[in-house]
Amino acid sequence: MINAGGKMQDPIAFYFDFVSPYALPGLIALERVCAMHGRTVEMHPMLLDEGAKAMGLPLLVDTPLKGDYMVMDAPRVYAYHGVPFKPALERFTTSSLVPQRLFCWMLRQDRQRAERVARAMLVANWSEGTDVTLPENALPLVAAAGFDGEAARAALDDPAVAADLDGRVKAVIERGVFGSPTFFVDGEMFWGSDRTHVIDRWLETGGW
Amino acid sequence: MINAGGKMQDPIAFYFDFVSPYALPGLIALERVCAMHGRTVEMHPMLLDEGAKAMGLPLLVDTPLKGDYMVMDAPRVYAYHGVPFKPALERFTTSSLVPQRLFCWMLRQDRQRAERVARAMLVANWSEGTDVTLPENALPLVAAAGFDGEAARAALDDPAVAADLDGRVKAVIERGVFGSPTFFVDGEMFWGSDRTHVIDRWLETGGW
Repeated sequence: MINAGGKMQDPIAFYFDFVSPYALPGLIALERVCAMHGRTVEMHPMLLDEGAKAMGLPLLVDTPLKGDYMVMDAPRVYAYHGVPFKPALERFTTSSLVPQRLFCWMLRQDRQRAERVARAMLVANWSEGTDVTLPENALPLVAAAGFDGEAARAALDDPAVAADLDGRVKAVIERGVFGSPTFFVDGEMFWGSDRTHVIDRWLETGGW
Repeated sequence: MINAGGKMQDPIAFYFDFVSPYALPGLIALERVCAMHGRTVEMHPMLLDEGAKAMGLPLLVDTPLKGDYMVMDAPRVYAYHGVPFKPALERFTTSSLVPQRLFCWMLRQDRQRAERVARAMLVANWSEGTDVTLPENALPLVAAAGFDGEAARAALDDPAVAADLDGRVKAVIERGVFGSPTFFVDGEMFWGSDRTHVIDRWLETGGW
């Protein structure tokens, strides 16, 4: 993107986990904000369980009171953003290693197509009731975007792919990221799908 | 408040802790939303450390990564809402038993004046750098509102006042409250100062 002065505008970095209920509404809200300000979204993998470990906390959904609140709150947030809510799992809790490894594997080949598939996986998992943490649900979405289906299946057991994801997540946590979604706007970190209206103001004013 | 149909509108319940950095911007944002919808605010005490205990978590400020994020995020939130940020304590962490007991003691005498003092204490603590968790800073604000200063000082050591606060906080946590600020809008719970724009839409549409 090029602004009025001809200067390249950096994309907004979007860190997310597929098993985070707030990732999809956060992405959709961010896309709207980016469209208004001539920015693009750059998606990056995050693992909620590694973030929880770094904080010394249990997963949100396993936390008394707060976990129940989230289960009640999530559908309300989807409705607020006008996004259909049909989650694959009732309590949201599972590992996202399968889709995150596939995402890393795709990123090394074609970022744009990789992001399109990651977005489709989020939609499938949260708006269409399709559990994309299962290879049999995730792999067809990868193949449908033109990636090599057999190679994708092999990537799930490839230690180099696992190490790639590990390295990305470690680097992200070192940067201070602990939850999903997390946004970086020109170096400024924002956490939570409910902060996109603050990002909107940030982009409008140039920050404060 | 009476709406167009002549029906009494319930106030919006606002649960807060004096040592929560998000309480004051949450209150000010809620007051604006209430003014637009002909609603009033009803303030109630909450203790963050009791909420943390109920969740089995450390205090937010003591949580790795998330605590640092909050310290960075709080001034940004104040600026967003146009509220001066001059906190009494750099890391925000202390006990609010003094102002909360005073608030309970005042509530039993005059809710309206009690809320005025509680609001003034929040402003003093977060916008004026005056630590209201200390009796010498809290008591003058109580007396300035016309409450009996000597009786207020005695209330700080009165087991009945301590028990009143304990009972209120226990009941609040049983209702599902774990953080500050928390809002109840016609029975619907919202957590976090960044949800007042959702409450605005909720009141406008009647909820979803």
